Amino acid sequence: MNKYHDLYEEQKNVLFQNFLTVLKFPSVSADKAFHPQVHACADWLCDYMKDLGAKVEQITQYGLPVILADFFVDKSLPTVLFYGHYDVQPANDRELWFQDPFDPLFRDGKIFGRGVADDKGPIMMGLFAISLLKHFGKLPVNIKFVLEGEEESSGKALFDFVERESEKIKSDLVLCTDTGGFRTGRAAITYSTRGLVYKQIDLVGPSHDLHSGAYGGPVMPPTNALALILAGLFDAQGRINIPGVYDKVRPIDPDERKAYAQLEFDVERYKKHVGSNTLVCEPGFTPLEQNWCRPNLCVNGIVGGYTGQGPKTVLPSVASAKISMRLVPDQNPDEISQLLEKRIRELCPPGIRLEIKDFGRAEPFMGLRSGPAADAASEAIRTVYNAGPDLIREGGTIPILSHFAKYVNPNVLCLGFTGSECNTHGPNENLSLDAFDKGVETTCLFFELLAGRLRHS
Amino acid sequence: MNKYHDLYEEQKNVLFQNFLTVLKFPSVSADKAFHPQVHACADWLCDYMKDLGAKVEQITQYGLPVILADFFVDKSLPTVLFYGHYDVQPANDRELWFQDPFDPLFRDGKIFGRGVADDKGPIMMGLFAISLLKHFGKLPVNIKFVLEGEEESSGKALFDFVERESEKIKSDLVLCTDTGGFRTGRAAITYSTRGLVYKQIDLVGPSHDLHSGAYGGPVMPPTNALALILAGLFDAQGRINIPGVYDKVRPIDPDERKAYAQLEFDVERYKKHVGSNTLVCEPGFTPLEQNWCRPNLCVNGIVGGYTGQGPKTVLPSVASAKISMRLVPDQNPDEISQLLEKRIRELCPPGIRLEIKDFGRAEPFMGLRSGPAADAASEAIRTVYNAGPDLIREGGTIPILSHFAKYVNPNVLCLGFTGSECNTHGPNENLSLDAFDKGVETTCLFFELLAGRLRHS
Repeated sequence: MNKYHDLYEEQKNVLFQNFLTVLKFPSVSADKAFHPQVHACADWLCDYMKDLGAKVEQITQYGLPVILADFFVDKSLPTVLFYGHYDVQPANDRELWFQDPFDPLFRDGKIFGRGVADDKGPIMMGLFAISLLKHFGKLPVNIKFVLEGEEESSGKALFDFVERESEKIKSDLVLCTDTGGFRTGRAAITYSTRGLVYKQIDLVGPSHDLHSGAYGGPVMPPTNALALILAGLFDAQGRINIPGVYDKVRPIDPDERKAYAQLEFDVERYKKHVGSNTLVCEPGFTPLEQNWCRPNLCVNGIVGGYTGQGPKTVLPSVASAKISMRLVPDQNPDEISQLLEKRIRELCPPGIRLEIKDFGRAEPFMGLRSGPAADAASEAIRTVYNAGPDLIREGGTIPILSHFAKYVNPNVLCLGFTGSECNTHGPNENLSLDAFDKGVETTCLFFELLAGRLRHS
Repeated sequence: MNKYHDLYEEQKNVLFQNFLTVLKFPSVSADKAFHPQVHACADWLCDYMKDLGAKVEQITQYGLPVILADFFVDKSLPTVLFYGHYDVQPANDRELWFQDPFDPLFRDGKIFGRGVADDKGPIMMGLFAISLLKHFGKLPVNIKFVLEGEEESSGKALFDFVERESEKIKSDLVLCTDTGGFRTGRAAITYSTRGLVYKQIDLVGPSHDLHSGAYGGPVMPPTNALALILAGLFDAQGRINIPGVYDKVRPIDPDERKAYAQLEFDVERYKKHVGSNTLVCEPGFTPLEQNWCRPNLCVNGIVGGYTGQGPKTVLPSVASAKISMRLVPDQNPDEISQLLEKRIRELCPPGIRLEIKDFGRAEPFMGLRSGPAADAASEAIRTVYNAGPDLIREGGTIPILSHFAKYVNPNVLCLGFTGSECNTHGPNENLSLDAFDKGVETTCLFFELLAGRLRHS
């Protein structure tokens, strides 16, 4: 137990009303019809943070509002930048929910509602921590909140803001709590996410669809060519077949392997979840390591020729595929993008015109898993959870993390207080009340512990 | 000049009215709304052939009417079975035609209309020949017409009839004039068509779509697997990569090569027509030989994952492809089908469930290009055209030909009187009046010449 626990127990009922209020805004950024509600949610958060004593600014010139709230204390103290997003995924699958996704429901020790775990819950954990810390006097560190409203729709507003106005968010540590946890009842430090390169290949064979009998032979079908190109990029064991692609892949540290082994990862349960009997791992890598620490190439989509019912003897004119590569530290997306394009061009057979579209790229992210900030987080977590954090990576990509590392501060720490069963993005998104409470307390303790350890630059 | 020419010139205007009449039936078999017109066309042809002296029967138990017309002369004479189809392709592209596709138009020495070349023109050439021959007495051979109404919609009525009632069409020679010509102003003997094996491959990876970041690595995407399987079936040089597939491929005879070389095939014009700069031929084969005499594998369709605009980071659950192989003599479709399935199963990577659907198969066809019937045809052609026939194969598949060869008589002769620019199946299908007239005269002469040469079994 700790002092924040007792205080929180006292104030919880009052504070929690604010969580319920923010959950009721259908702040769906992907759908323009909801944009007034995105703005309303931003306005409410701004008012709430003003009441908590922050100097608040809404930046609207890059897209949906980026909210900046400055809980400034003292120049001599280090500054933490708390990141979150107040927009949510759509919830058009109303019929699959227990009740209205924007009318929060308590049931079985959980709270159900869109955004409850991703990411309004973690934002409110941070703001409740501010409330509680202030009861004991001044905040132990300077804290800035930067909250965006386009995360769920891959918007660029925050990216533009970070690139062009990074002096406004100068800080000694970036804290992200939008990453999830790994096991129920545990908190996690996610110290790495994978990068991304995404391309579309468009092939043209003959200038128009032909009869496959009358022309099959001398005319190369682009569908055949597509298979030849794609199959030249990887093998059946999941290795990528592009020269140079593994050159900069950082080996897994022995202590990382040790940490992963302690996660009690259940391979059989995983297989059941994905619905596949056989997993594909390179020799010497576990499924977790394969997903977290190894680059990967996935054909995300493929189309060409006749795709309706039954047969059609067509020799198609065009075919295309979407392919994405996940990158790991220290692969460089620009380099990998070039290697990939070069390889595709080499593999393209004669008689085919090739066009490659680029859908952008993201750097792999490597943040903190040791050092003063990570140690402070671990200690706070151990105090609240009676167990240390799960030290994990993530197979997905969170582009803003490497953006923060590049433009704000390489010290980026990701804490996950929400479990893996929160069904974020799906129906009946939920968060256990216990996880929420622990998140609030851990955040309080973390800021307190940080004060004496984080170096102010 | 010959006696049939003079007689035909005399009677042409009267006879031609019947051609115009039969062209006016929109006998589109693919569209049920037109089936009454298919029947009306069959009825009209039956009446016309009765008037010409045939014993006529409509067989309707297998589907749209199979018409059987028996121009019997004498038991001691050999019998020729004349094949044709009175149904036509749809003509929904009315706006691309000079005028109503079912209101024949004369222009620039040609007649325009749906079915004029495929296949009502060739049928009427045969029936006009009967008319003319009768002017000089009895027909020189017994002639049976078998006309189907489902050719353009891949119907099975005639196939069922041939299998079950072949005694009704017993004959010493099957004559097909539904095959086209190769050069303008020339007739052709098409002595071989390719066979077909057609399959669909359905792959399932994970049981549901996954996030390609969160699962990419240990989970094999079926789209990746599809590329690996397909690319294992052929190479960039157009060779099929299935063990045993070439074992029974009949080598091209030197005299065939010689005949092909005389066709004045214009490779540059062909490239321009297909809209591709580079043709893919195995070493030692010309484009014509590659299309006519070599087996081929074409991916007719491919689909999986996200195929809309822009990127989507999905690891798909399913992917599928349609693939067809064209076969040449003496490949056996059943054997090839098995080899193909075996190879696909071998190539399927771990973590993928595979299902193979069969869309049927057709035997390659090898008919007459020499012997008494072919010689009679050549002589008739040489007389009328002042040039011998083009001896050609076809890359496509005409399944009924091998069916006739199997169930009726291996002596199957295909004569082509319609040119390659008739735009069959397309808008403004047409036939030159000269080609029609020559077809009528050649058919007369051919039957006359056949009398003394075809052996009666």
